Amino acid sequence: MLESAGTRSTRGRVTIGQVAAMAGVSPTTVSHVFSGKRLVGAATRERVEEAVRALDYRPSNVARNLRTRRSHMVAVIVPDLTNQFYSVLTRGLADTVDAVGYGTYVCNTDALLDREHKFVQDVLDRGVDGVVIAPVDAAPGTLSGSIYLGTPVVCLGDGIDLPEVDRVIADDENGSRAATAHLLNAGATRVAMIRGPSGAATSRITGYRRAVEEAGGTFVPALTVDGRWTRQGGREAMARLMHLEPRPDGVFCANDLMAIGAMDTARSFGLRIPDDVALAGFDDVEAAALVTPALTTVENPAYATGCEAAKLLLSRMRGEYEGERRTVVLDCNLVERESG
Amino acid sequence: MLESAGTRSTRGRVTIGQVAAMAGVSPTTVSHVFSGKRLVGAATRERVEEAVRALDYRPSNVARNLRTRRSHMVAVIVPDLTNQFYSVLTRGLADTVDAVGYGTYVCNTDALLDREHKFVQDVLDRGVDGVVIAPVDAAPGTLSGSIYLGTPVVCLGDGIDLPEVDRVIADDENGSRAATAHLLNAGATRVAMIRGPSGAATSRITGYRRAVEEAGGTFVPALTVDGRWTRQGGREAMARLMHLEPRPDGVFCANDLMAIGAMDTARSFGLRIPDDVALAGFDDVEAAALVTPALTTVENPAYATGCEAAKLLLSRMRGEYEGERRTVVLDCNLVERESG
Repeated sequence: MLESAGTRSTRGRVTIGQVAAMAGVSPTTVSHVFSGKRLVGAATRERVEEAVRALDYRPSNVARNLRTRRSHMVAVIVPDLTNQFYSVLTRGLADTVDAVGYGTYVCNTDALLDREHKFVQDVLDRGVDGVVIAPVDAAPGTLSGSIYLGTPVVCLGDGIDLPEVDRVIADDENGSRAATAHLLNAGATRVAMIRGPSGAATSRITGYRRAVEEAGGTFVPALTVDGRWTRQGGREAMARLMHLEPRPDGVFCANDLMAIGAMDTARSFGLRIPDDVALAGFDDVEAAALVTPALTTVENPAYATGCEAAKLLLSRMRGEYEGERRTVVLDCNLVERESG
Repeated sequence: MLESAGTRSTRGRVTIGQVAAMAGVSPTTVSHVFSGKRLVGAATRERVEEAVRALDYRPSNVARNLRTRRSHMVAVIVPDLTNQFYSVLTRGLADTVDAVGYGTYVCNTDALLDREHKFVQDVLDRGVDGVVIAPVDAAPGTLSGSIYLGTPVVCLGDGIDLPEVDRVIADDENGSRAATAHLLNAGATRVAMIRGPSGAATSRITGYRRAVEEAGGTFVPALTVDGRWTRQGGREAMARLMHLEPRPDGVFCANDLMAIGAMDTARSFGLRIPDDVALAGFDDVEAAALVTPALTTVENPAYATGCEAAKLLLSRMRGEYEGERRTVVLDCNLVERESG
């Protein structure tokens, strides 16, 4: 551990030499840590990063340009590429950066923090020019090093709150509100919700609640049931809802998989969709259009998210933008099909 | 164009100096082309590649080791990452190479030859250590340069027939045979097939034919109908089949999307599945388990294909194997559900 030294000076005035002195390494080694040009041992890297933080050092354009070898690669760090949302997002990203000569390096974290940490170190060691990340949690720990060292980062969702990390966010509150309002406008009078586990995707619950209240109704906590994001969870949640008196005649589900589970239960109860109970999902996965009846749902703008993240990243990588954090909010549009 | 020169000698005896002389460049430039260490102009690269071919030059281990900077990246060049088969395959590849310190660079060709060509050049220019490719067509043109220059390549499917290119192939002939035999064993007496466009995936047709003949039946060309790989094509093909006299009581579909289209038609004809007509698909996409009735289908081993391709590639990248082409054949297992 390095102590915050007395040499700490006004931001922007600190030199590489001071960082090197504090870390007990040569200025060349500091440059190597910044540039990603050579592999630097983890312990040395940590000493340099600690000195950077202690001195509040920011690389100037000159220091940034010490980076003589650009890898012309960007990294995308996501939970799982086999999740359709992330494969489509990665395609949007790859198409956008490919058009200007950058390759795309993919990392799957499985939403595990130690894997995220490993990949962040890994992509910085390789000298990628930028990182797009769907962070495992809100702790900026794994990322702060990269940000201080001048590699631009774009965050998917609002998980990271750091001044130089741009964000791309889907407006799922308004998407959920539109889906719920659609069920109400189509004639449902008592719309329930199958949600994710407690604390997850609360903006979708907020959107549901707003639509209910805007239609003159009251938000009833007992009408929002946990479906655990799975088909089987959706089946069980729907069974609980269908045993209520009076029975809900509309159900907004916070993802399509739970909505497909709710369909299974409606079928087993002999209920017609949408006549006896109307259903809407969220995400618009491929299967949503393939089930019968086809699922009314809300589009999660995966491809556009990848494109927007790429644009934010490119503008910083190319030095066209160096200012405060930007946030791009993308619409989640209602996709009307047959279920509601 | 270079003429095949009189200096052509026994394979293995040609030196880099001879290649350089023929191409009219310095030996250092030839090294750069081989190593991918520096960007080399396209015209120069072509002159060197032509000299390499004309002289039948093979890089020795020494030449290969001129490659001082290993990128520790492998490239996966596929038609479209948003196709579930390729996203799952890429995950299998990434997991396998990640475990030994390699990153994965993804390229989407959209099955366009000019994009494939661009990406092959691109990944070689970046000095990737190996390439996994689902080639657009059987022409080895875009790849021959990389192979002669010592970057290992693994081919997905049997599209490339070159002596040093290992292949991973799915045994879809036996998968198709198993699905058709399953429909026959379950009581269908007249099993039709909805296939892809003429000339596509003929091994699936061969598998269907074998099962029909092994059950004592006769292959009737009129019972194999083109469904264009799409849901709508499957609907139309199924309508044609359901108007035949006698009507088929089983249909093997060469992909799941056409099988889901066939389900739509069966439903609109008031036919019960599997009682009136049994159905089986191919691929086991996510939706296959989500439709009602759940689709009996054949697994396309995407994840295993990615893992096997990675293992073949790693063994050549690390110099553990330098021999003749290897072919790994993976089983396509029947997945019994409700439709047949």
